[in-house]
Amino acid sequence: MKNISILGSTGSIGVSTLKVVDAFSGEFRVIGLSAHSNIDLLIKQCIKYKPKIVTIVDETHYQTLKNALPHEIEVCAGTGGLNEVAAHPDNDLTIAAIVGSAGLYPTIEAIECGIDIGLANKEILVMAGSIITKLAKKNNVSLLPVDSEHNALFQCLNGEDKKSVRRLMLTASGGPFLNLPAEDFNKITVAQALEHPKWSMGKKISIDSATMMNKGLEVIEAHWLFSVPVDDISVIVHPESIIHSMVEFVDGSYLAQMNVPDMVFPIQHVLFHPERRQSPLFREIDFCSVGSLNFQKPDINKFPCLELAYEAVRIGHTMPAVLNAANEETVMLFLNDAIKFVDIPCIISGVMDQHKILLNPNIEELKQADVWARQAVNEHYTKMV
Amino acid sequence: MKNISILGSTGSIGVSTLKVVDAFSGEFRVIGLSAHSNIDLLIKQCIKYKPKIVTIVDETHYQTLKNALPHEIEVCAGTGGLNEVAAHPDNDLTIAAIVGSAGLYPTIEAIECGIDIGLANKEILVMAGSIITKLAKKNNVSLLPVDSEHNALFQCLNGEDKKSVRRLMLTASGGPFLNLPAEDFNKITVAQALEHPKWSMGKKISIDSATMMNKGLEVIEAHWLFSVPVDDISVIVHPESIIHSMVEFVDGSYLAQMNVPDMVFPIQHVLFHPERRQSPLFREIDFCSVGSLNFQKPDINKFPCLELAYEAVRIGHTMPAVLNAANEETVMLFLNDAIKFVDIPCIISGVMDQHKILLNPNIEELKQADVWARQAVNEHYTKMV
Repeated sequence: MKNISILGSTGSIGVSTLKVVDAFSGEFRVIGLSAHSNIDLLIKQCIKYKPKIVTIVDETHYQTLKNALPHEIEVCAGTGGLNEVAAHPDNDLTIAAIVGSAGLYPTIEAIECGIDIGLANKEILVMAGSIITKLAKKNNVSLLPVDSEHNALFQCLNGEDKKSVRRLMLTASGGPFLNLPAEDFNKITVAQALEHPKWSMGKKISIDSATMMNKGLEVIEAHWLFSVPVDDISVIVHPESIIHSMVEFVDGSYLAQMNVPDMVFPIQHVLFHPERRQSPLFREIDFCSVGSLNFQKPDINKFPCLELAYEAVRIGHTMPAVLNAANEETVMLFLNDAIKFVDIPCIISGVMDQHKILLNPNIEELKQADVWARQAVNEHYTKMV
Repeated sequence: MKNISILGSTGSIGVSTLKVVDAFSGEFRVIGLSAHSNIDLLIKQCIKYKPKIVTIVDETHYQTLKNALPHEIEVCAGTGGLNEVAAHPDNDLTIAAIVGSAGLYPTIEAIECGIDIGLANKEILVMAGSIITKLAKKNNVSLLPVDSEHNALFQCLNGEDKKSVRRLMLTASGGPFLNLPAEDFNKITVAQALEHPKWSMGKKISIDSATMMNKGLEVIEAHWLFSVPVDDISVIVHPESIIHSMVEFVDGSYLAQMNVPDMVFPIQHVLFHPERRQSPLFREIDFCSVGSLNFQKPDINKFPCLELAYEAVRIGHTMPAVLNAANEETVMLFLNDAIKFVDIPCIISGVMDQHKILLNPNIEELKQADVWARQAVNEHYTKMV
């Protein structure tokens, strides 16, 4: 029996994680759950899984949650509660599935307590990859990638010598606007951008997928997870999302990992690692029905966010945190219909240009860069309107 | 420095092996070479690589070879000479790259001397898989697969638990007649059948590829190499020959191995195993130029040889040896324009129907089944004309 906690249990990764838990009765004990504000689902999950601890980030729901649950469940609230759930002493594995930089502190807490991390919250490594990977090493903690691309790379690299890797190739579905002509990008609506062709995900990641910033953040994440120089990581558009990523080796061999596009597969891989377990959720890829797997180069003119991510990680230091925070804020403005889709990369790029880099930042300094970038986005926005 | 010998050094695998040797100056010492009858190329190879021992199977060339070489090279002839080359005490690795059942005895000799085998000669495992794999285990010898499909599976299975394998999926180019309508199969000429769309190979394997018997033999080979039940091995047509094979795991994950279709890649993998070495022969797969990877089911009506191979290995005992020998003889008849392309599966199937199975055969009994099958093919042929 493995004890797990889930940060972001009502989000799409959290719900899929619990689906895997359900499929393997008696294999997992849910210790902690957390949600931002989806109180109804969180209450249902608590009644079903009887965790020891639960937290709701939006404190206005605290009393409702407390009243709904039996008194043996410890109920917390606010961001402090996230730390309690992440680092609960009974945890063997914490699934970090919060969106955005909010997952940073609780993940650090869990690592410092020696708890393995199932990492779905890519912004953590984007912001603070150097610090997080060093901390994990120091505490002998595994960072197990939940993201389908990184989980694919992790599987392809199993048993391989690091020296034999020539390039990591992240596949990208291309998002909803892969075939939209560049001249139509300034008419993109929020509803269109939320319609992902392959994956049903939260709003923020859906927009990131539409701008391809998501792939840029994944490049940065892969750089830190696998210690591969960023210029040895490339992105290739593969609309069918069957191949989740590939590794190119120095001897001319390539390995690719595939599964039916459903997050239960990488999540199961992480939950049982290092074992592969026969799955009641097993679904065969019918290659003959799929017919063909297609590949094309990403169009940097249509998706400049991808290039901004490469720039940010090449510069390093505080810049990736600035990229990440500027992106989070800009996406929020777009979701609120305050700016156009094409404004997203312009604002992020403007904020990056303005940023005065601080060398070798610590977590506090990264957090300050994050706050600065958010303010800078809002200043850009104010000038625009 | 690794000491290698090559059985079949003038064939396409042999030549590609020496290309890899050339690319890594100082890494390999060629101990022995052998050819069937290509005396000119064999002499050139001997002068270049200065082996300790060389043999020519066709004894009529013995004196020519002897006269052309410096006296410090030991010159042998006939099939006995193959044993000498295969099992030379200096060998670390013997590449078994002879076509057909002729490679059986020399490979056994090498295994009994504890020499690792680079296995390109698939008929050895088809005939005597049970005996050969047991013998290799007993002598602590590695059977390293050179065939691109098996080498691909070998790479995908690296570091994986055998229990986690659900299915092996061998890819097939489909050969030159993939898109030829069934009704045109009785007009196929030898020249057409020798024109493989993706690989330049010897005549026998080219015909096997055109009938898809080659893939059937590979299914049997995979069954023995990886101890996977034959009904958990499937064949999928993939005309681009980029994915060389795939493994389906019990948890819903698939791993695929790829390289530019050139035998130097699997050969290099075998020569350096377990290391991956940076290759001067490196060639990138340009996925964007390839554009798409396609898949379809093999058409058993057009390619009944594939099904015959499954049948033979399900029956087991002497039947795979009979399948193999009957195929070798029938292919020879086709190459000599004595029978039609569509006669190949009919004759093999007739011979298999006639065969009285001998249970748990030893090598001698397998060899007798082989001889019987060849005679049976010729009887079938005699009745036809």
